[in-house]
Amino acid sequence: MDTANIGELPAVPDARALQATKPSSDCLDVPESRPLLLACGRQLAPYRIAYKTYGALNEAKTNAVLVPHALTGDQYVASPHPVTGKPGWWETMVGPGKPIDTDRFFVICPNVLGGCMGSTGPASLNPSTGRPWGLDFPVITVGDMVDAQVALIDQLGIDTLFCVISGSMGGMQVLQWAARYKERVFAAVPIAAAAWHSSQNIAFHEVGRQAVMADPNWAGGRYLELGKEPRNGLAVARMAAHITYLSEEALQRKFGRSLQGLDAKSFSFNADFQVESYLRHQGSTFVDRFDANSYLYITRAMDYFDLAAEYGDVLANAFKGTRTRFCVVSFTSDWLYPTRESREIVQALNAVAANVSFVEIESDKGHDAFLLDEPELFATVRGFLNAAAHKRGLPTPRRSS
Amino acid sequence: MDTANIGELPAVPDARALQATKPSSDCLDVPESRPLLLACGRQLAPYRIAYKTYGALNEAKTNAVLVPHALTGDQYVASPHPVTGKPGWWETMVGPGKPIDTDRFFVICPNVLGGCMGSTGPASLNPSTGRPWGLDFPVITVGDMVDAQVALIDQLGIDTLFCVISGSMGGMQVLQWAARYKERVFAAVPIAAAAWHSSQNIAFHEVGRQAVMADPNWAGGRYLELGKEPRNGLAVARMAAHITYLSEEALQRKFGRSLQGLDAKSFSFNADFQVESYLRHQGSTFVDRFDANSYLYITRAMDYFDLAAEYGDVLANAFKGTRTRFCVVSFTSDWLYPTRESREIVQALNAVAANVSFVEIESDKGHDAFLLDEPELFATVRGFLNAAAHKRGLPTPRRSS
Repeated sequence: MDTANIGELPAVPDARALQATKPSSDCLDVPESRPLLLACGRQLAPYRIAYKTYGALNEAKTNAVLVPHALTGDQYVASPHPVTGKPGWWETMVGPGKPIDTDRFFVICPNVLGGCMGSTGPASLNPSTGRPWGLDFPVITVGDMVDAQVALIDQLGIDTLFCVISGSMGGMQVLQWAARYKERVFAAVPIAAAAWHSSQNIAFHEVGRQAVMADPNWAGGRYLELGKEPRNGLAVARMAAHITYLSEEALQRKFGRSLQGLDAKSFSFNADFQVESYLRHQGSTFVDRFDANSYLYITRAMDYFDLAAEYGDVLANAFKGTRTRFCVVSFTSDWLYPTRESREIVQALNAVAANVSFVEIESDKGHDAFLLDEPELFATVRGFLNAAAHKRGLPTPRRSS
Repeated sequence: MDTANIGELPAVPDARALQATKPSSDCLDVPESRPLLLACGRQLAPYRIAYKTYGALNEAKTNAVLVPHALTGDQYVASPHPVTGKPGWWETMVGPGKPIDTDRFFVICPNVLGGCMGSTGPASLNPSTGRPWGLDFPVITVGDMVDAQVALIDQLGIDTLFCVISGSMGGMQVLQWAARYKERVFAAVPIAAAAWHSSQNIAFHEVGRQAVMADPNWAGGRYLELGKEPRNGLAVARMAAHITYLSEEALQRKFGRSLQGLDAKSFSFNADFQVESYLRHQGSTFVDRFDANSYLYITRAMDYFDLAAEYGDVLANAFKGTRTRFCVVSFTSDWLYPTRESREIVQALNAVAANVSFVEIESDKGHDAFLLDEPELFATVRGFLNAAAHKRGLPTPRRSS
């Protein structure tokens, strides 16, 4: 019986390992003298934040838009990924003439702390040993990611960000920015996000982590030193997670029960169904561009995210006194961060009389809708940013949009 | 950093391996002269169906209730599991005075073909080699499982089953029985089931299979011969599947974001959250009682299930001419087999003017509600069986219920 499966993957890609230590993008190197105090109590220094910028900062430095990325994203929001060569992860949204218009705004996209595309993370070299951090890297939080971004914004000489906008874990960072650095965020757009990670979401992440750690090649997290990689485990983790990014309707519409290049069932464990073949592809391509330990650390940061807990268990307290303008966006078929979790954010903002608009977008594309071609999302972001830019006193773009 | 994870599991339990070859229950051994013609085109002979019965068959042999089990179930529906010592999987439903009253009905519960509790499956010995079948075992279907059960019912001298009733994959077998053996099923109760396996369900099964096959101890399915077992892979598969058996509401209510015996986060990859600890437990206890290859085969059979496809892609055709009385049951929070899929069954039955009642039960317990303490389910089954028994001319039980 032919059982082609994800076990048959190529070796560790050097191009990716290189990005962790010698990123293709710009970098901020924070010296040992300015350590980052982490939520766990440890200090991190020196550390590096790799980032990309698009467009130009105006003289008043009032047109900066920060786009923090989601779990498996990176700084290549609107330019090709240096390992895969694929387009940036949000090119539909960010670029010249796009809703986040780089002819008008200065877009900053940092790789998160804990990531594997150049920012300090478990795949980076631990300066005290000269070897990859692995599990000696401290467990970080969304708050830590944001604090590290503050150092970058400071370095760029920006006092107040015009907007912080993103989806999923990017949206969590938006909320954390708006709560912790109120005076530095003029507008905030959390999309397909939540103020806390649900029990079910923790459960799915735990499955992914166990899949990675069950792979003998994970080797207690020391695989990089040993020249191995838990590719099978990470691929399984990605497959499980990927299902949660879609919706049952979208899967049924896209794949249904269609067979993959077959007239009839093979009566084997081959990928008979298109959906199986699609998932295997998702798993195997992911491991070419992502580090397994980064996956552990970033999922953990998301699990730990509970904004209200930092403010006496009252979410509204997180936003007390805010002057930020908010636009909260959810999607009807997103079951990972369902609309009711966006509503909780809106209710908390309403409770402190914040300036907030809320849009639930009808879509059958599930959580990943925020990354896809969703005209209502584009119109919402474009409209909100135009109005906020007007309030901020930014010039109207010549191009009508 | 302490990273206790599912990698630290005990060795292969002999008690379970023994059940595959020398089950504690009754067995029907079908000789080589009466092969089972499988959907894949191969013939299987000899083969064994291990089964348990409860209660007594009446003289007219009209009081038999067949209870086919779900994916990871077995024949121990109302008596302790011989490996785990835990109560039968449906003791709330089956037993003296219970809705499926063993004082009144003769309950038959067979282990499915492809299972690992005594019925012929991949862990059984292949008579042509004397070694465990492993992946040489033919890929079977729900239809094959039912055909093997027909041999058992014949052997017991039963012409017409009073009722076939079960949930999940058990419900698929109910539908297959009702479609393929119309004259032999007086009443049918598919619970939390569907007439076909959705794309999303195939996707989740594929994740589980890939988790098993990615485990080096799976060894191309030959682990039993080699004295190994893909315990980590199977545990991960179970963890992922287990999430789909619950509901987000149930997880949130049961566990929320509560920490497991901790005052604060550990900032590690330990099971900080109760839901993580619960899932790890589900994974590790499962591998003590289940065979990894059986998991592959049975999930595959479910993926292949598409009753309409056997009847010209028109589900109603599957039931044309039926005189069976149906009661279709779904649960509001079941997202694995949502109510709309039960409605499709009801619509198909209505289209052929079948005798059908449909009950959607309000529950936040998700798919597993069918196994749990759901008074409305018990009342529904009790009421339906009482009425059907009256129609069938079975005596009213002395005990009022």
